[in-house]
Amino acid sequence: MNFRSDNEAPAAPEIMAALTRANQGSAHSYGADAITARLQDRFSDLFETAVTVYPVVTGTAANALSLAEIAPPFGAVFCHEQSHVHTDECGAPEFYTGGAKLMPLPGTGGKITPRALETALAGMGYHGDHEPAPVALSFTQATEAGTVYSLDEQRALCAAAKNHDLAVHMDGARIANAIARLGCSPAEITWRAGVDILSFGATKNGAMAAEAVVDFRPEDARAAHRSLARRRMRGGHLLSKMRFLSAQLEAYVTDDLWLRLAATANAGAARLAAGLNACAGIELLHPVEANELFIRVAKPIIAALRAAGFEFHLWSVDGAEVARLVVPYAVVDDDITKLIACARAGATGANGIE
Amino acid sequence: MNFRSDNEAPAAPEIMAALTRANQGSAHSYGADAITARLQDRFSDLFETAVTVYPVVTGTAANALSLAEIAPPFGAVFCHEQSHVHTDECGAPEFYTGGAKLMPLPGTGGKITPRALETALAGMGYHGDHEPAPVALSFTQATEAGTVYSLDEQRALCAAAKNHDLAVHMDGARIANAIARLGCSPAEITWRAGVDILSFGATKNGAMAAEAVVDFRPEDARAAHRSLARRRMRGGHLLSKMRFLSAQLEAYVTDDLWLRLAATANAGAARLAAGLNACAGIELLHPVEANELFIRVAKPIIAALRAAGFEFHLWSVDGAEVARLVVPYAVVDDDITKLIACARAGATGANGIE
Amino acid sequence: MNFRSDNEAPAAPEIMAALTRANQGSAHSYGADAITARLQDRFSDLFETAVTVYPVVTGTAANALSLAEIAPPFGAVFCHEQSHVHTDECGAPEFYTGGAKLMPLPGTGGKITPRALETALAGMGYHGDHEPAPVALSFTQATEAGTVYSLDEQRALCAAAKNHDLAVHMDGARIANAIARLGCSPAEITWRAGVDILSFGATKNGAMAAEAVVDFRPEDARAAHRSLARRRMRGGHLLSKMRFLSAQLEAYVTDDLWLRLAATANAGAARLAAGLNACAGIELLHPVEANELFIRVAKPIIAALRAAGFEFHLWSVDGAEVARLVVPYAVVDDDITKLIACARAGATGANGIE
Amino acid sequence: MNFRSDNEAPAAPEIMAALTRANQGSAHSYGADAITARLQDRFSDLFETAVTVYPVVTGTAANALSLAEIAPPFGAVFCHEQSHVHTDECGAPEFYTGGAKLMPLPGTGGKITPRALETALAGMGYHGDHEPAPVALSFTQATEAGTVYSLDEQRALCAAAKNHDLAVHMDGARIANAIARLGCSPAEITWRAGVDILSFGATKNGAMAAEAVVDFRPEDARAAHRSLARRRMRGGHLLSKMRFLSAQLEAYVTDDLWLRLAATANAGAARLAAGLNACAGIELLHPVEANELFIRVAKPIIAALRAAGFEFHLWSVDGAEVARLVVPYAVVDDDITKLIACARAGATGANGIE
Repeated sequence: MNFRSDNEAPAAPEIMAALTRANQGSAHSYGADAITARLQDRFSDLFETAVTVYPVVTGTAANALSLAEIAPPFGAVFCHEQSHVHTDECGAPEFYTGGAKLMPLPGTGGKITPRALETALAGMGYHGDHEPAPVALSFTQATEAGTVYSLDEQRALCAAAKNHDLAVHMDGARIANAIARLGCSPAEITWRAGVDILSFGATKNGAMAAEAVVDFRPEDARAAHRSLARRRMRGGHLLSKMRFLSAQLEAYVTDDLWLRLAATANAGAARLAAGLNACAGIELLHPVEANELFIRVAKPIIAALRAAGFEFHLWSVDGAEVARLVVPYAVVDDDITKLIACARAGATGANGIE
Repeated sequence: MNFRSDNEAPAAPEIMAALTRANQGSAHSYGADAITARLQDRFSDLFETAVTVYPVVTGTAANALSLAEIAPPFGAVFCHEQSHVHTDECGAPEFYTGGAKLMPLPGTGGKITPRALETALAGMGYHGDHEPAPVALSFTQATEAGTVYSLDEQRALCAAAKNHDLAVHMDGARIANAIARLGCSPAEITWRAGVDILSFGATKNGAMAAEAVVDFRPEDARAAHRSLARRRMRGGHLLSKMRFLSAQLEAYVTDDLWLRLAATANAGAARLAAGLNACAGIELLHPVEANELFIRVAKPIIAALRAAGFEFHLWSVDGAEVARLVVPYAVVDDDITKLIACARAGATGANGIE
Repeated sequence: MNFRSDNEAPAAPEIMAALTRANQGSAHSYGADAITARLQDRFSDLFETAVTVYPVVTGTAANALSLAEIAPPFGAVFCHEQSHVHTDECGAPEFYTGGAKLMPLPGTGGKITPRALETALAGMGYHGDHEPAPVALSFTQATEAGTVYSLDEQRALCAAAKNHDLAVHMDGARIANAIARLGCSPAEITWRAGVDILSFGATKNGAMAAEAVVDFRPEDARAAHRSLARRRMRGGHLLSKMRFLSAQLEAYVTDDLWLRLAATANAGAARLAAGLNACAGIELLHPVEANELFIRVAKPIIAALRAAGFEFHLWSVDGAEVARLVVPYAVVDDDITKLIACARAGATGANGIE
Repeated sequence: MNFRSDNEAPAAPEIMAALTRANQGSAHSYGADAITARLQDRFSDLFETAVTVYPVVTGTAANALSLAEIAPPFGAVFCHEQSHVHTDECGAPEFYTGGAKLMPLPGTGGKITPRALETALAGMGYHGDHEPAPVALSFTQATEAGTVYSLDEQRALCAAAKNHDLAVHMDGARIANAIARLGCSPAEITWRAGVDILSFGATKNGAMAAEAVVDFRPEDARAAHRSLARRRMRGGHLLSKMRFLSAQLEAYVTDDLWLRLAATANAGAARLAAGLNACAGIELLHPVEANELFIRVAKPIIAALRAAGFEFHLWSVDGAEVARLVVPYAVVDDDITKLIACARAGATGANGIE
């Protein structure tokens, strides 16, 4: 009964089957295989525009490569103060960009508002060359707080960025959950909303190890010196047996597998949120719009859940216990039911204690 | 009939089976799983000393991370002028080290001699701080030329490096082929011969995408700030579903799979070399001691091989055609037989033409 | 009547004289000259311990080189959120360290408290290798807010850092002003208080362009691969005609020139602060303990000062006008008198307006 | 009697006078002063086109900043195998570019031929993204061997680079000596011959510490994000009291000072070369076209010169002694006369010994 992370779920059967299929005979290496070739068209179809796709094995690689493309070493990249790029990548963006400066912005629910971005930009420019050049915005969709920008929110944010000539990166580690929530098309949530370059996630949602940089920039920028391809190579992210990476991504977007898996996870999270929200001693910190819940939770409930074998991450924030529950695509419905029941029982026992 | 690269072979059945086994249920992420835990012990047993193992997905990542550990940005790393780190990684070592300087050395058969190293070192130190500090040696075993350092050669080379306080990195992208050739133990060819840090290859020899940095340095150096772990993370090489990477490596070294596969490839290469060596119009450029052949070959033979559907890489070197033939673990014996026959036929047709 | 910056003052006559003296005949280059040799001893005497001195031309270079020595690329460096290294160097620390992460801390009066440092450290370590390693503290003395840490404050801060094995860097762009304020010895304010490496400033206090990294670390760390010397070289900061840089530093610390100049500037700032503090419509934001004043100031006063030809920097902070007045060593006493008088007159005119 | 390096000469009186003049009163900092403003126009006039000038204190800084502007981290920069950027800057170009790869080319007399460049380029492109992108050429004028490219040679070399879309950097540490030799205009030897960006040297030829990047690229490239200005800042090369750097450069190009000093040095070198060339036991290795001589010299002559107090650098190359003699602008004619006489006397004594 593991609610620790969607990274802890197994690979989906469709992904495993694709790997087995890809393992027939020899194939040209370093991306010169047939599956990788198909993937370019497949993603261009999916996004309804010509894109370039660069499969990689981690979201951190996708993020760092994306940012390196749009931020020079002397640039500033605006991001949420709780964003993965800023707090969980051990400086990968700084490494890949050659030392660009991340500019963390506050924002409730993991979201950056146009106003927060404008305010930060208004505070820059007083120190001339002593400051980095504002060059990019990176935002996460679905967010690290388990919320989802509405299309209008996202468009407004990207428009604010564009008004200041910032390039826009979207960390889509959970893009499938966002699309499943919004019921929109992949195009609507990306380039049509102002995204220049995307970290397309699959691993958290059923792949074994497969993410991709999807580059929406104009052909010229994408072709220049094959810069992204070369950055990937020198980052050690060009797989010799690329077919196995591409095969995962191909299977992932075939027959809407990605959206079905994400919908399953989202629905589970919604049911879990509804159940816990009705539970004394538990407070949802953010709207649950994807597959993650962040809850402030009474200690007896925690004890009860732990005793019953539920696994989840826990932090102490300003003296209160904050738990993160992630519902993976592979969740067992019964586990959710049990967790809600256990929390309720723990909450009852907690009466008078809090 | 693909002799292009061992990277073009499929993953071995044992590897695929291990992936399927690893895909049962949930597992902790980022290397906190049971398989990865076992791997540390498994490799310490294998190498007969306590090591730290860092699985990654490419040899370039393993090389660059290894070099970053032993070479500061202001350091010089000696390597063969045809080494992969110098010629085929688009500057990955420069990127990961923060700009260390590779110092290419000449050497027949892809081998660095102690004398070549000594000569290069003797030429340094005249320009004070204007020169990088000589800090490391990187050599490849089996070499990029398809040869294998004897243990004596390797020991002498490493001893020369140690005499000058150089740390020693071994690019073991084809270490299995070298061990299979030498009939030695993994310990003998690594730390007992003077190696401090190793890129342990598996992908070319049957894995799907699995390499590892194996760190033999003293405990203190290995533990300091978890430097290698953090470099891997910020390189984007810490897989969230690490179990799948570790599972490949575990299967790879179980029941001597790696050595059996390498022996198969080596034997095929030896048979191919013997056949071609007897063939007019073909000259072996280097002793064939692993699974790669480099041959100078008459044009009609090339034409005949191409026409028959044989795939291999070809360069024009000083006006002559040089082909590389790589025999993968998955080679079909009959393909070798056919290739030899085809080359002979082509050579006959070539008489009088050359 | 320039109160914009101590960087705008001319070089002191003693410095100019030293440059003229240094310009006699030829001298060995790149620091192999007699003046540079003397400087090592001179600074070891000055600091009452064996140090290594690396003259450079900017404080940014001194800071970035210092941090590169004590922070690996995967490290975290704690600093004040308004520190020069974080806000005014366009990412020089990120560049020189290879992408280390600056961790800005809040603190009134430009000072970091041990508690703020402890709190930040307590919040780290939950994300394993996803977080940078806490490795260093950088603090500024005198601070960017024009205050000076007492020796007790500084010792407590450095002790907190040492308790967590952080190396300590002191940005001493205005170290002379701090020493002049505290009446302590150079040793007391540096290594005896826990400083490992120091950016020693001279340019703001009368030099033409001369700063230095002063390295207090144990001999072994200072000698290793001549790392700091090589970092300086590859940063482009090893001057060929080094004698001219060393000559400035030598003159600067001869006959207490540096302390006399700093005392002059400090005294001027104190007099200016006293005068302005008594002035309606002006509020001192921080205690004035060095040579900088930060004041919240009514608009009519600003207008009066500007009209009278006084130059100073001005920001709009949350709707209020905040001015910085810097008193250089070369200040004319009469200018201070006039400024106070002008502000008072402007304040009188301002009555009823505010 | 110092023939070690032009870096060991004092600053010219005109430079010292300019520093004294610049030291009057206060001036805006970080390049916002009147002298720096004038310098932009002065250099645009000098080069007969609109340029941007970035004063810095070392040639290494100028070179590394220039290369960082034209070479991305995944790029390859062609240069002579004996070029300063490759052999004497401790990896500064690798540091500033973020790990670009220098591609050393052979060439007699320190010169790169179009053919050598073409050959190197023809050997690239076979390994796809495994290779860096060929992006730039860096050549030195006057060369490190003391020769000078004729304008035709330089034009042909730059044209070859342009044919392959390489940007062109000229290391002009001794550009004054080259211009004095060729009798051409600054425009002819730079942008009119195909140079995009120039390291303009002054320190070796009479300045105290003053070099500059001169950027000839189109306005757009020069303005983009103020990239060069920001790179200079984060390299720690933006001097707060910039006026003192600009004043040196202004004086240096006023009334042809730079060309007069260079002509003096060149003439001295020519006289020295003629004298030594007539001397048994001495062989000039390269034509002496600037102010450096490289000679193969018999040991007794070396002994005689050393005994007489002549200072110069000496290497042992393949068993022979090779000396470098540099004639600075400040050379005393009599020293040259004495050196020739001493070498002749030593040569006579050497008869029968060699």
